[in-house]
Amino acid sequence: MSSAVSPLAPKRVPDMPAIAGVRLATAAAGIRYQGRTDVLMAVLEKGTAVAGVFTRSKCPSAPVEWCRERLEAGSARALVVNSGNANAFTGRSGRGATKLTASLAAKAIGCRPSEVFLASTGVIGEPLAADKFAGVVDRLAADAAPTAWLDAARAIMTTDTFPKVATATARLGGATVTVNGIAKGAGMIAPDMATMLAFLFTDAPIAAPALQGLLARGVVDSFNAVTIDGDTSTSDTLLCFATGAAAARGAPWIARANDRRLGDFRRAFDGVLGNLAEQVARDGEGARKLVEVVVEGAVTKRSARRIALSIANSPLVKTAIAGEDANWGRVVMAVGKAGEPADRDRLAIWFGDIRVAHRGARDPAYDEAAISAVMKRPEITVKVGLGLGGGRDRVLTCDLTKDYVAINGDYRS
Amino acid sequence: MSSAVSPLAPKRVPDMPAIAGVRLATAAAGIRYQGRTDVLMAVLEKGTAVAGVFTRSKCPSAPVEWCRERLEAGSARALVVNSGNANAFTGRSGRGATKLTASLAAKAIGCRPSEVFLASTGVIGEPLAADKFAGVVDRLAADAAPTAWLDAARAIMTTDTFPKVATATARLGGATVTVNGIAKGAGMIAPDMATMLAFLFTDAPIAAPALQGLLARGVVDSFNAVTIDGDTSTSDTLLCFATGAAAARGAPWIARANDRRLGDFRRAFDGVLGNLAEQVARDGEGARKLVEVVVEGAVTKRSARRIALSIANSPLVKTAIAGEDANWGRVVMAVGKAGEPADRDRLAIWFGDIRVAHRGARDPAYDEAAISAVMKRPEITVKVGLGLGGGRDRVLTCDLTKDYVAINGDYRS
Repeated sequence: MSSAVSPLAPKRVPDMPAIAGVRLATAAAGIRYQGRTDVLMAVLEKGTAVAGVFTRSKCPSAPVEWCRERLEAGSARALVVNSGNANAFTGRSGRGATKLTASLAAKAIGCRPSEVFLASTGVIGEPLAADKFAGVVDRLAADAAPTAWLDAARAIMTTDTFPKVATATARLGGATVTVNGIAKGAGMIAPDMATMLAFLFTDAPIAAPALQGLLARGVVDSFNAVTIDGDTSTSDTLLCFATGAAAARGAPWIARANDRRLGDFRRAFDGVLGNLAEQVARDGEGARKLVEVVVEGAVTKRSARRIALSIANSPLVKTAIAGEDANWGRVVMAVGKAGEPADRDRLAIWFGDIRVAHRGARDPAYDEAAISAVMKRPEITVKVGLGLGGGRDRVLTCDLTKDYVAINGDYRS
Repeated sequence: MSSAVSPLAPKRVPDMPAIAGVRLATAAAGIRYQGRTDVLMAVLEKGTAVAGVFTRSKCPSAPVEWCRERLEAGSARALVVNSGNANAFTGRSGRGATKLTASLAAKAIGCRPSEVFLASTGVIGEPLAADKFAGVVDRLAADAAPTAWLDAARAIMTTDTFPKVATATARLGGATVTVNGIAKGAGMIAPDMATMLAFLFTDAPIAAPALQGLLARGVVDSFNAVTIDGDTSTSDTLLCFATGAAAARGAPWIARANDRRLGDFRRAFDGVLGNLAEQVARDGEGARKLVEVVVEGAVTKRSARRIALSIANSPLVKTAIAGEDANWGRVVMAVGKAGEPADRDRLAIWFGDIRVAHRGARDPAYDEAAISAVMKRPEITVKVGLGLGGGRDRVLTCDLTKDYVAINGDYRS
């Protein structure tokens, strides 16, 4: 397993400001790793609203089920995340572990267990020794500090090669509010899989249903538009917490997601989601190239999305890009297999700015040297024009390299 | 690109008998390759019935469109197949190339161009120089002989590592009839993709609609139950020809696919389809292990198929098998992402004969040494029990190795 930082990692880590009402702490509970932190606790002020979206897997992890059941109440006082064990496919003992973790955290900070949200990532099918949290929760609650964002992002990493943080500010009414986010992406620990976890925090005073509306809309073109290998974790979790602390500085209370005053906030919120999602693609297992797939001229956006995902998930397209080969024949194949309306004789394909195919055949002006230069870049856009309608969409992925196979095919020790 | 024969190749090549009414010849037309044959012509007796199934791609190759349009007439006098150029995504010139090829062949053997069926495999997006066939069709027609089956299978290979042939006999009425088949599988030539071509021939007197019925049913559990990487070629073609010559030996004319006298013929026909489909999986690009995925206890067979394909197409499952890792956590993931009814707490998973998971958790009796021995075998069965109903299905695939990435990610020269 490679431990080198992905060559696609952002060049600069942003300064992460404090968010009123959020305090963070990390600890080494020894769940699986040695010599590193593996638990994150976020302590949230009373009145914090929560929203969440989760894996669509029919076999979700115990923490995913725990969060789903508690989301309706809409109120959160803590988030506890561990790495090293996913608490997935652990049956009755898995449910017991979530209960115990929530009770321990609730006791440490003085809230109800139902106000504690949970996420786990790591090994599947092994019981999570949640009693190990007993030794650290009191200290976590006591140590929690407003600026430990990078430490928080580090504690939830599995084989991510860099911690993922993002921040943005927005005007809401007369006040400036902040959105911070952390994420972990497609890393694996045998016998685990790529699990995506992301957590957003804001001091904006937004009621839970409005926050859920913002989130449901925001993930469409961010986390739901990223694919590493088309596989879906049992544990994917994206939670969003709004402390409402900015109300004291004049920010208005927002009850509905379609409130017009949310315009600038939505931009910041979607920006953080998009930034984190892109970092996940930049840290795809074995990735050497960030690949943007753009589909235009589809009959609808939904159809464009399906075609874009068909291209982004095609092993033949992804290996070609790894080999710096502008193999548009495979793009044609991936368009064709998507099952969406497409007319071969109207199809156009670009790599970067260079059109390689036009009206269902190779572009006669196609210059091999120019395309070769495009394919050597670390960031590559594949664009398909269908010429049928106004549907457009974009997804992010990465190439498929021998390192992906090495990372995921290593013998289990 | 590796040229070594797949370690999963069948140990023995069957003797291929003649089929009355079928003659075969191959030639080197120099479409792309040097020093090998690249054209196959099958000359068929008057009255030969034809049936076919094709790629579901929305961007099919020109020969696929040609065959589809001519299938309804149900009558064939020749099949011309070339390797080296797929004549796909070639626009108007592609249609011209099919027309020219059919005309040349028709003239050489004395039939109508509409009775000539075509298939091409190889490079995509480059015009097929069909005029090169002009130099070889007359000799092909003259040389065609009844026993050149292995040569025929060799002429249509791209990066297949071995030729694929299969044969079976059956009783039909009072006569013995024969079914022969040849196929090519998942090989690629930059910038091409895995294209599957297969051709079956029989002397049984079966009318075209009945043959189509047999074929449509026969592919469900053979070629449609094989996946290498989930990618769908623009050119996949499976054609079946029935000369009817066995009528002279007393075989009854069959007009309908549900004719009861077809029982033994169907067994032989399905056997050849299944055998060839398995050989395709055994020659999957970079394959080191043949993987059988069995799903039981699903709500329907259709649901079982979807879950089996989700497992068989999962890069994480396939890389784990390449690494000889009985990573059942990834199997849970693949079941979960299929979107089909599944109850995590009833799930059971086996590798070979060893149950590794039971009732939604690791099987307590799971023996690491025994499972390790299973995973070292060249043929591995992954079985999932859903515990919901009587739906059962089976698909074949292979592992995902670094060689797959090397074969498909090599720099284009």
